[in-house]
Amino acid sequence: MSKKIKVGMLGIGNVGTGTYRALEMNHDLIAARTGLDIEIVKILNRSPEKDRGISVPAEKYTADVNEILNDPEIDIIAELIGGIEPATSYMAEALSKGKHVVTANKAAIAANGPMLASLAQDNKVMLRFEAAVAGGIPILTSITTALLSNELTQVHGILNGTTNYILSQMSMYGKSYEEVLKDAQEKGFAEADPTADVEGLDAANKLSILISLIFGISASPDAIPTRGITSVSNVDIAFAEEAGYKIKLLGSAERKGDKVYGNVEPVLLPVSHPLASVNNEFNAVFVNGNAVDELMFYGRGAGPLPTGSAVLGDIIGISKRIDKESAYDNLPQLRYDSPLTFAGEGSSKYYVRMAVPEKSGILGKITTIFGEYDISIEVIRQEADKVEGDEQLVSLIVILFDTEKKKLLEALDKILKTDAVHSIENIMRVETR
Amino acid sequence: MSKKIKVGMLGIGNVGTGTYRALEMNHDLIAARTGLDIEIVKILNRSPEKDRGISVPAEKYTADVNEILNDPEIDIIAELIGGIEPATSYMAEALSKGKHVVTANKAAIAANGPMLASLAQDNKVMLRFEAAVAGGIPILTSITTALLSNELTQVHGILNGTTNYILSQMSMYGKSYEEVLKDAQEKGFAEADPTADVEGLDAANKLSILISLIFGISASPDAIPTRGITSVSNVDIAFAEEAGYKIKLLGSAERKGDKVYGNVEPVLLPVSHPLASVNNEFNAVFVNGNAVDELMFYGRGAGPLPTGSAVLGDIIGISKRIDKESAYDNLPQLRYDSPLTFAGEGSSKYYVRMAVPEKSGILGKITTIFGEYDISIEVIRQEADKVEGDEQLVSLIVILFDTEKKKLLEALDKILKTDAVHSIENIMRVETR
Repeated sequence: MSKKIKVGMLGIGNVGTGTYRALEMNHDLIAARTGLDIEIVKILNRSPEKDRGISVPAEKYTADVNEILNDPEIDIIAELIGGIEPATSYMAEALSKGKHVVTANKAAIAANGPMLASLAQDNKVMLRFEAAVAGGIPILTSITTALLSNELTQVHGILNGTTNYILSQMSMYGKSYEEVLKDAQEKGFAEADPTADVEGLDAANKLSILISLIFGISASPDAIPTRGITSVSNVDIAFAEEAGYKIKLLGSAERKGDKVYGNVEPVLLPVSHPLASVNNEFNAVFVNGNAVDELMFYGRGAGPLPTGSAVLGDIIGISKRIDKESAYDNLPQLRYDSPLTFAGEGSSKYYVRMAVPEKSGILGKITTIFGEYDISIEVIRQEADKVEGDEQLVSLIVILFDTEKKKLLEALDKILKTDAVHSIENIMRVETR
Repeated sequence: MSKKIKVGMLGIGNVGTGTYRALEMNHDLIAARTGLDIEIVKILNRSPEKDRGISVPAEKYTADVNEILNDPEIDIIAELIGGIEPATSYMAEALSKGKHVVTANKAAIAANGPMLASLAQDNKVMLRFEAAVAGGIPILTSITTALLSNELTQVHGILNGTTNYILSQMSMYGKSYEEVLKDAQEKGFAEADPTADVEGLDAANKLSILISLIFGISASPDAIPTRGITSVSNVDIAFAEEAGYKIKLLGSAERKGDKVYGNVEPVLLPVSHPLASVNNEFNAVFVNGNAVDELMFYGRGAGPLPTGSAVLGDIIGISKRIDKESAYDNLPQLRYDSPLTFAGEGSSKYYVRMAVPEKSGILGKITTIFGEYDISIEVIRQEADKVEGDEQLVSLIVILFDTEKKKLLEALDKILKTDAVHSIENIMRVETR
């Protein structure tokens, strides 16, 4: 009655362990619902002595990747090593040998998506990577199935749990960035080297994948303007909250005409925006479609079991098609063929915090220069408290009406050359809804 | 290159108009992405003189349903009439004639799901109804594809936009239920006869469908304990907010052992719960899976275009399978074959508001009787204000630790027979997270 599906797994770290456990827990339920008897038959494991907290029969382990890639019995390869190489090469080899591939690897898909997608197509096999974006949240499945009825015009994602945890804790408890980061590292929510998370690089990989799926163009992570959360201070958070905003690190992209604008940066979101209530380690993806209007998908973006849930979901999706001997249908489909072009950062409302000397005439100079650049000021406020570490300086915060980022930077450059401003401390987009 | 798919549409009210418009807007994009040339070729319309705000060639209209059901060229029937009959009969006839069926009809699917699902199976055609639950939100697609890797243990949904709008406005502006309902009716958010919405019947239909998909059992809307929002007063909302809760009308179901408990009722949700921030006409569905943990899906649960987005998404999903001549795969799959049983309401924390005379000895009597039933009190508070319309009475509010609903009702019955309590004004579940 039930069809046997054999899976070879490359890597048994957090995601591999979670995938193995999710299958252990739900194998029988999956079989009852789908008629599929899925088994992970071989696992590439270069440290078999390490205790993973799961009981895997020793004979499933191998230290030789070829034992898995060359096994004619294996239908699906789950690549869960992470990093661009050797993961990309292993996936390319698997696809070339006519094996379906599931991966959680955002870096490899963002870097080598075009090559891997075309290999999959040439070999009439499927390549799936739901786990690569926002962990357990079925956002790629939704975009590439149920939402095909829409032109999606916008995407905004809280795509990194570590940075959302840090910003949430700073906001909730008034703690400093350094304090929260240390605490997050102790709790295992942040890595010893947090660069990829706090500088926004992890989010840029995920946004790159979303841009391909939604807009059908390539925007490599290097081409996406990316700024992390290290410039966000408690002064920014306190001001934003008083003014009715929450600060979130967003990966965003939006189509305007034949251009797609997008970046990764901390953004001021109105508290009424659904993303503003997404706290701590949770992720969420907000999309806007021309028929469906607003949608938000919320859940855990990391962790062994939530990510394993997505990997296993992709394995089931492929297995059902193998079982039915149904035609090749590569979903989600990475596309790079749309006539749109990626154009980096566009225009927006902006928040700027400057450190200024406490003397008269400052505001006049600043507003005059903004005026020269046709940039209108919505809010301007000088903070009473001195800037930390310099008794001569206070914070001056402005919120500016829609302006091009490029023009804003030119104006700020000119302002910096006067004696009115000591330094530009932070620039963040202000999102309206 | 592109495969022609012909759709016959039954009904051209709000949802039909939205579906037609969504296809008009996105036909070319869908063709570019999927290779499908989808056309709505005939429309059952019994009032062709009515202006729908869309331009449909007159020859597409027919007043005779058989012209559509018997047209051998038509691949897919979109049933958008609503109501149990004649919609069920039309769908049954279409399925019997080997046509795929898409519907937005929650009442017909909740009432006749088993019959329609088995007809689809017998005739090897597909039956899809994403639009029947939570409008544009792709919750059924997610449950029946990406989340097959999980045992889902819980579902909580804000499944009705009208009641969520009313509760949100009462909460935000302190307006009375009657005032907001009237306002909602004037704005077109509530119907002239709001019974199906405010009494929870619409939500019960949707919960019934979710229970079948998630737990694989039948729970007909009649078997689901259902209570609407008419008992919710501003006193309840004010108390709840002071205590850190928001009141939402939820359709909920949860598995405990081999039983599934569920109901539709207003519930006190902690403000930190993701559903607590879902306001106004928006819907959201929150599920808990044994691998993925918490997930929430948020969006518009009604409206022509959002609902049309879901109908068209189902049409595309079926069309892709027709195009690939892929094997029959009936998703979402209504299941009624699981060994679980539906057991109505289980145990929970409860909120009770009573009207009591303002005299001494009241609290002693009440707490003694709760004690006899082993029901512990977490919070008890007597309001200072008199109950509206009776100068002798004040409100007494208790929050009770976990207890069975049945036992609670017995205790309240006994309390009512003393002179300590004039009346029980409201009972609501308190959800913990």
